[in-house]
Amino acid sequence: MGMQHTPLTMSRIINRGAVVQPDSEIVTATGDGVRRQTYSSTVRRSNQLAHALRRDGIAVGDRVGTFMWNGSRHVEAYCATANMGAVLHTVNIRLSPVDLEYIIGHALDRLIIVDADLLPLLEQLSDRLPFVERYVIAAEPGFENWETSLPNAVDYEDFISGMPEHFDPPALEESAALGLCYTSGTTGNPKGVEYEHRAQYLHTLTISMTDAMGLSATDTLCGIVPMFHAMGWGLPWAALMLGCKQVLPHRFMSPERLVQLMVDEQVTLSAGVPTIWQGIKGFIDQSTDAVDLSRLTRVTCGGSAPPASLVAWYWNELHVEMIQGWGMTETSPLGTLARRVAKRSHIDGSPAQLIDNGCKAGLLMPGLELDIFDEDFNRLPHDGESVGEILVRGPWICSEYYKNPQPSKFHENWLITGDVGSIDEEEYLIIADRSKDLVKSGGEWISSVDLENHIVAMDGVEQACVVAQPHPRWDERPVALVVVGSESEVDEEKLKNHCLLKFAKWQVPDDVLFVESIPLTSTGKLDKKAVRAKLKEDGYVLPELRN
Amino acid sequence: MGMQHTPLTMSRIINRGAVVQPDSEIVTATGDGVRRQTYSSTVRRSNQLAHALRRDGIAVGDRVGTFMWNGSRHVEAYCATANMGAVLHTVNIRLSPVDLEYIIGHALDRLIIVDADLLPLLEQLSDRLPFVERYVIAAEPGFENWETSLPNAVDYEDFISGMPEHFDPPALEESAALGLCYTSGTTGNPKGVEYEHRAQYLHTLTISMTDAMGLSATDTLCGIVPMFHAMGWGLPWAALMLGCKQVLPHRFMSPERLVQLMVDEQVTLSAGVPTIWQGIKGFIDQSTDAVDLSRLTRVTCGGSAPPASLVAWYWNELHVEMIQGWGMTETSPLGTLARRVAKRSHIDGSPAQLIDNGCKAGLLMPGLELDIFDEDFNRLPHDGESVGEILVRGPWICSEYYKNPQPSKFHENWLITGDVGSIDEEEYLIIADRSKDLVKSGGEWISSVDLENHIVAMDGVEQACVVAQPHPRWDERPVALVVVGSESEVDEEKLKNHCLLKFAKWQVPDDVLFVESIPLTSTGKLDKKAVRAKLKEDGYVLPELRN
Repeated sequence: MGMQHTPLTMSRIINRGAVVQPDSEIVTATGDGVRRQTYSSTVRRSNQLAHALRRDGIAVGDRVGTFMWNGSRHVEAYCATANMGAVLHTVNIRLSPVDLEYIIGHALDRLIIVDADLLPLLEQLSDRLPFVERYVIAAEPGFENWETSLPNAVDYEDFISGMPEHFDPPALEESAALGLCYTSGTTGNPKGVEYEHRAQYLHTLTISMTDAMGLSATDTLCGIVPMFHAMGWGLPWAALMLGCKQVLPHRFMSPERLVQLMVDEQVTLSAGVPTIWQGIKGFIDQSTDAVDLSRLTRVTCGGSAPPASLVAWYWNELHVEMIQGWGMTETSPLGTLARRVAKRSHIDGSPAQLIDNGCKAGLLMPGLELDIFDEDFNRLPHDGESVGEILVRGPWICSEYYKNPQPSKFHENWLITGDVGSIDEEEYLIIADRSKDLVKSGGEWISSVDLENHIVAMDGVEQACVVAQPHPRWDERPVALVVVGSESEVDEEKLKNHCLLKFAKWQVPDDVLFVESIPLTSTGKLDKKAVRAKLKEDGYVLPELRN
Repeated sequence: MGMQHTPLTMSRIINRGAVVQPDSEIVTATGDGVRRQTYSSTVRRSNQLAHALRRDGIAVGDRVGTFMWNGSRHVEAYCATANMGAVLHTVNIRLSPVDLEYIIGHALDRLIIVDADLLPLLEQLSDRLPFVERYVIAAEPGFENWETSLPNAVDYEDFISGMPEHFDPPALEESAALGLCYTSGTTGNPKGVEYEHRAQYLHTLTISMTDAMGLSATDTLCGIVPMFHAMGWGLPWAALMLGCKQVLPHRFMSPERLVQLMVDEQVTLSAGVPTIWQGIKGFIDQSTDAVDLSRLTRVTCGGSAPPASLVAWYWNELHVEMIQGWGMTETSPLGTLARRVAKRSHIDGSPAQLIDNGCKAGLLMPGLELDIFDEDFNRLPHDGESVGEILVRGPWICSEYYKNPQPSKFHENWLITGDVGSIDEEEYLIIADRSKDLVKSGGEWISSVDLENHIVAMDGVEQACVVAQPHPRWDERPVALVVVGSESEVDEEKLKNHCLLKFAKWQVPDDVLFVESIPLTSTGKLDKKAVRAKLKEDGYVLPELRN
């Protein structure tokens, strides 16, 4: 043994930002402005929180829930639990009461930290969570006088008040659990993914690489992706390690507020799902005032693939690089990432090629293995044509689900992701539709994602969602739900003609429904399951089949 | 267990560059130009080398020596041994025959790969290394007809010829040994540092971070630091992971050739010791032709601290950021690194402040712990004034020496580095003189490094070295050895007056010796031990004491 075998525990890296940049800020949006807090204060407060949790009997391995927006107290909860060895269960605030009851009960959270404005959502369940010993209420301005029917509730500030500001992290194994996050499964109960210190430590280093998200100590990061979703894509950890200024939108998720926050705080890097970026594009397009986002250089876009028109708009209008990433709760989450200029051959690439790079899911992160397979687990060629099931393995990939191993989701140590895609000759992963999102018409497949990306590129279209509807002869036919801007002149005929520019006639949707909004999943993706359910509930019938 | 516990072995990352950028090149300087080789060819050839080594009986854990310059075959040796689990012992070609015999015998290298032009150095020892079963001779153009008295010698190309081009790395523990490098100790025999896969894996990710060296797949890297010195500062591994173009100078280390190589190959990033950068500055200063280094953006400078005048010259003349790093063989080697703009507070920093940043050893890399201590191992304040022994620990820090543990070099898991320094309020490490390099005069300390940096900033001075000489009354007095340019008008009086601009009269050297050259250590540092020995041998006496 020639080298020290220092355990890769998060406390070794996440307290560094406050050491090297103690005055760097964490800015949280409030009803009438922002709250500011330094890194040194954040670490002191997180140490107080760790002591308070210990006083309440929370021990290494115990689950501490958060039911919170992105804000400085959520960051403190990340820090405190990581330093003390508790397991942070980031509860998705958008889940249904049934799912909430299930996952909190499955995780057996001993204590839950709740944003005061979210209390009503948990109060519905208060008598069904007897194992939760304590609720700690985080009150943003305007909510200081919270009241709740939840038992043993205490104000966050009272809870940590008077606790020591220094905390010595206990020795932990690097395989110790760090976090717990449930996937919003499409079938069956949600499944828990347990993050470990070592895995997240490696993930943190990796996303800070120049060729990944390129985070730097000099960045101002606006994490829009919820911190309850796959550890906020790991960004809170990397920011804590580097001391990046963090700008957190809390519950203020309107495009207008987000843009204002990014302008005011001179954000350089942000992260969110495509619908966020569509919304911000829509706001800027309609804004009559100039919007100064000149400091913003790149936005990471994940959850689902952004349309090419969106990637191009951000580059051409704002000179902002949209970095597409692919991953999932089970992959910590970063699997692949697509930079505009990712290879030497791109240095003199054409504008079109560089946009095209951003429309792929990207290149695999170092240390992971990823490939596409047929149904018998034979590897498929990397020719950009062959589409197969995506399997991935490596040091930050889930090996089993929490208290529910699900061996059928794994194959010889590989995670079967449920996503399908191709890999091109440049080794780029390109995600295809999940099989349940393909439209099967007359024995042929129609890609709903391709149709959506094409439709949303039309002037005046803000969102588009294509789902399959049953048809006695063709099996299924595509139907498009579309949200248009207030002054849009898009109608059904124009939209279908637009589709014919790229698609065969039989691939064009049979019907176009102009709607006010499209339901999104708790992670901001188009919720096609809900769309299909609503159409069924409304008794929707394809035009051709109506009497 | 929620996450996969994939071992952190180098084969998981170092073959990635050839997958994503198979056509990226490794360029090796030759007598009359360069040799070019793609990454895909390099990986195929390294796989052949691994098979050939196995055929010779080299097994997991066996030591394979290299006695080589920086070149593509040295990269192949890195790859092949890492993939097969052999231990790469990079022998320092500048060691004395006594030290060479000692370290090759201590490591018990079973096979040594030798650059043909270096054969004479090893032939001196050929009958004293009976355990070396095989010498593999790497012949650059002009050396194809090598002859040697070394036993069992075979040409590198014949050795790998016909071997399979695909190699499946065996399963290794992440704590498996990867490399072996001996420190050129100032006392006693050289001591071996055994690098492990896990440690170097983490080091590779870390140096690829934006806030470290910021390596990218799009970089063209010219590693001037020898690959036999602390794994070439880890750069070959990071380049292999990312697929950077590599430009390797082999034995052509003159400033003129190095500059030509960087111009011709459009190098973006280079790495070497201060004497290299002094030499290149001297060449460019005297060059009558324009030198186009416009692609070069940063050079990493380690081994010893560059003078402020050098950092400023590179920025002001070439717009090149000189990134000072601190580390040693025992630290894999990266400990700290100083970027021009390392913090948010530097974004609008003054030019002088940004140069000053580069003159410090820098900020600690994430995951390491480092502090300064007094003689009783009490931590000293971070006030920029207190100077103490630098201790460091973490996942890529040596825990003991190879087959020679040396517990006195460690304290409660900390490595006692032998370097001394201060840490300022910004958490920057600033290296002071090693205690043996301080001049103790009349009970006060004089910093030889401060004097050298000040002297070398004079126009016409190319190198300066200050050493202590014995004095009956003052204990020691400083003497300066100086190398000046051919048209320099610097004389003793001018130099002393220059010193008086910054130093007290009692701190100014008693004597100035104008010399042709100053001896350097095998790692390119001023060899003060040799300077002192030479003065003693010559019977040097301070002017005041002469009869």
